[in-house]
Amino acid sequence: MAKQVKTAISPTRDEDYPEWYQQVIKASDLAERSPVRGCMVIKPWGYALWENIMQAMDNLFKATGVKNAYFPLFIPLSFLEKEAEHVEGFAKECAVVTHHRLEKGPSGRLEPAGALTEPLVVRPTSETIIGDSFSKWVSSYRDLPILINQWANVVRWEMRTRIFLRTSEFLWQEGHTVHATAAEARERTRMMLDVYTTCVEDYLAMPVIQGHKSLSERFPGAVDTLSIEAMMQDRKALQAGTSHFLGQNFARASEIKFQTAAENEEYAWTTSWGSSTRMIGGLIMTHGDDDGIILPPKVASAHAALLPIIRKPEDRPVVMDFTEKLARELKEKTYHHRKIGVEIDDREIGGARGWDWIKKGIPLRVEIGARDIAQNSVYVGRRDQTPNKKSSFSRDQFVAEITAILDEIQQNLFQRALAFRKKHTVKIEDRKAFYEFFTPENQKKPEIHGGFAISGWCGSNDCESKIKEDLTVTIRCIPFKNENVKSRCICCGKQSDSPVVFAKAY
Amino acid sequence: MAKQVKTAISPTRDEDYPEWYQQVIKASDLAERSPVRGCMVIKPWGYALWENIMQAMDNLFKATGVKNAYFPLFIPLSFLEKEAEHVEGFAKECAVVTHHRLEKGPSGRLEPAGALTEPLVVRPTSETIIGDSFSKWVSSYRDLPILINQWANVVRWEMRTRIFLRTSEFLWQEGHTVHATAAEARERTRMMLDVYTTCVEDYLAMPVIQGHKSLSERFPGAVDTLSIEAMMQDRKALQAGTSHFLGQNFARASEIKFQTAAENEEYAWTTSWGSSTRMIGGLIMTHGDDDGIILPPKVASAHAALLPIIRKPEDRPVVMDFTEKLARELKEKTYHHRKIGVEIDDREIGGARGWDWIKKGIPLRVEIGARDIAQNSVYVGRRDQTPNKKSSFSRDQFVAEITAILDEIQQNLFQRALAFRKKHTVKIEDRKAFYEFFTPENQKKPEIHGGFAISGWCGSNDCESKIKEDLTVTIRCIPFKNENVKSRCICCGKQSDSPVVFAKAY
Repeated sequence: MAKQVKTAISPTRDEDYPEWYQQVIKASDLAERSPVRGCMVIKPWGYALWENIMQAMDNLFKATGVKNAYFPLFIPLSFLEKEAEHVEGFAKECAVVTHHRLEKGPSGRLEPAGALTEPLVVRPTSETIIGDSFSKWVSSYRDLPILINQWANVVRWEMRTRIFLRTSEFLWQEGHTVHATAAEARERTRMMLDVYTTCVEDYLAMPVIQGHKSLSERFPGAVDTLSIEAMMQDRKALQAGTSHFLGQNFARASEIKFQTAAENEEYAWTTSWGSSTRMIGGLIMTHGDDDGIILPPKVASAHAALLPIIRKPEDRPVVMDFTEKLARELKEKTYHHRKIGVEIDDREIGGARGWDWIKKGIPLRVEIGARDIAQNSVYVGRRDQTPNKKSSFSRDQFVAEITAILDEIQQNLFQRALAFRKKHTVKIEDRKAFYEFFTPENQKKPEIHGGFAISGWCGSNDCESKIKEDLTVTIRCIPFKNENVKSRCICCGKQSDSPVVFAKAY
Repeated sequence: MAKQVKTAISPTRDEDYPEWYQQVIKASDLAERSPVRGCMVIKPWGYALWENIMQAMDNLFKATGVKNAYFPLFIPLSFLEKEAEHVEGFAKECAVVTHHRLEKGPSGRLEPAGALTEPLVVRPTSETIIGDSFSKWVSSYRDLPILINQWANVVRWEMRTRIFLRTSEFLWQEGHTVHATAAEARERTRMMLDVYTTCVEDYLAMPVIQGHKSLSERFPGAVDTLSIEAMMQDRKALQAGTSHFLGQNFARASEIKFQTAAENEEYAWTTSWGSSTRMIGGLIMTHGDDDGIILPPKVASAHAALLPIIRKPEDRPVVMDFTEKLARELKEKTYHHRKIGVEIDDREIGGARGWDWIKKGIPLRVEIGARDIAQNSVYVGRRDQTPNKKSSFSRDQFVAEITAILDEIQQNLFQRALAFRKKHTVKIEDRKAFYEFFTPENQKKPEIHGGFAISGWCGSNDCESKIKEDLTVTIRCIPFKNENVKSRCICCGKQSDSPVVFAKAY
């Protein structure tokens, strides 16, 4: 009989995955709910993680010639209405500003006053307001391309929210570009998807599948939406970034026109692409275990927690001196363009201290006691290994090898996630098998979903809708890989031009 | 007779200072008005400047133990009402969200729908919403201090707006800290004012005066407001950062209580401190000349514009090769913790090209022609010198000395601004002289204001109001320097405990 192992998080993933997610966030101190409906508070440990993700991504963007700018938070209602599908897509979830001051009302309480002549929508995304600027910035082909990114907060009023995954306000970046030709705009759309892939795979250690969205899952107003899709540990899919080829739709809506070399006036071609704090939710559900989150070293809020062990008060000066010297030395080293982040935790709270850092997901825990110091060694626990497994290193060896150890953890997390995804990705050609794969009663745990099914699809909205209705399973993407491999639609049996990824999704 | 010099900006500062300011921004491509009332678009050249200011400040904050976090954009009306003076101070300029979706109305047009039960105010500042989090985070003296900063957008509905100086939406940072004692909170209030001083003087090259605000200019709800005040070239004052000691006012409002070591429950002591994109307005008005802005090298969007001069098409390969190699070499060098930023501009538009970079305020313009290359030299113009003054450097000497040249420009800008402020800061003890100093008819140009008058003040609101009414002159601060030097109130002649700085202000 397997020994019952006590875990830091209760319930475990197996017992109740959604509740495990909430408890992991609570235990990690990454973020918390706020008293404002659907909005979250990102706490310092979570914000440091976001800063590192932003930095990595910002560097990748800038390397492709993108420059940052900032546009208004508010969008006049008439701007949003310029693109019909676009406003249709966002109308149900808009926070609307209608007044510009507060005044004492008849009841003596403050009430909204100073009604605006035109309501302002708090940006859910900024195509229309940025498009207005672009229309002024572009007049000739010589002004193109324009490659802009904005780091900002956006609001999409959500009725059912979950921290990081779905919140009414979230932080994100939105890129917007303008090009002289459709081909160049399509190329940029794909280039930015590749940038997201690099960021998510190399930094967040989350393997993803690249592909096109089906029509029904496209960004409102886009001609083509590309996405990267990751598998969570409950085998549901999470979209970790999208890149849209907008054709001339938004150029027409915002009058973004330019004169060609041949002196014709033409509408420009635009793209937009976004990724958000939602990635943090994906990171948690990709790497977390029953003891809490595991932060990939390249984006971790800090890399190592130094835990001085002071058994007798008289040991304190020696132990703290050793600890502080080690911290200084480690902090001078660089791991992937960042200084190594070190936390010293000298609280005298016994074993709870080590568990706190496990729950916070820090890659390395370094115990330093009087005995270790006598041997000039440290005792190191890795977050990608079980809590009790610790190894002794000579102090100097640890300093010399820390970046290699961090790299090993980074690779290990990616490989584990990749193996998991492979294990739960199944090619299914038979409709009955497909339905069984996604029917909870056939799973050991009802909250665990089948995984990714790679199956044919005829391209019709009917088949897509039927599967969604029957199984709450959607087409996550039409992957670039194996594009144009013919098969049969898993639903109706008609010809399929490309296999697609079916899954339940966040 | 002085030769009439043609300037790049029209009108000049002397002709029309407010209009000069608008034209300088336009010519620099830093930012522009948006179609959304009172909101600005910060363009890439302006945003890069803001990124550099943020980075400098963020490093200074973190060095004092401050950590970044993020709190909701929306503040429930009831939260804002918790502190009476606070809501009173902001009620007249709040953007209020009252609905959470859009629906087709009887007219067929989209209208706000889904009325909220409680209106949400778009944060004008976040004391009350962050206070709510603090009340949950603090329970014991062991949890203190809490040192938090947030980089965010805020909205204060302004009727008369000017880019950077006064906009309805602006970008800022707001720091919020919680302490166990009043003394510690006061110390932090002062420490953060010193951090602002370092940032503004050492990075933005703007000399400032530190001091206390008078009661009437205090932050709504604060016990004490400290500020730094800079002098613009029209001799008006600009507040470039404020730091507030909030006493226990917001702790009481948000129920931030803690248990002391002696196990008593007490309200905590809080501070807040903020600085914003307004600093960019100050930077423009401190250093700009009649040819446009001058960016201090430590925060400049880029450091050097390389301008290849191609007289014959066949020169192009050689000139561009030389230019690109130089750019690569310069970019590998570091100036004040940042890689040197280099722009290559090979547009063939004649003299307009050099003027474009002058108007953008880039510290160095480097002309590279076939003749220069033959001598392995470059021809360098400095933005702190007149446009026609250029010096020849050997290429290698320029590479070796560029950081020293940038430092010289940085120091020069600061010293120029300091000399200007000293020249226009006058100690005035006589009421008549004071009124004359601030009376436009006595100035050569009505739009130029007297400057800073250092005069006594009895501390009464009556005298402060009278001077404001008569002259639109306000008390900018009660400077730390010469605090407790007794004199006479410039208005009523009663005893003054400390001299104050009087000025017209932005």
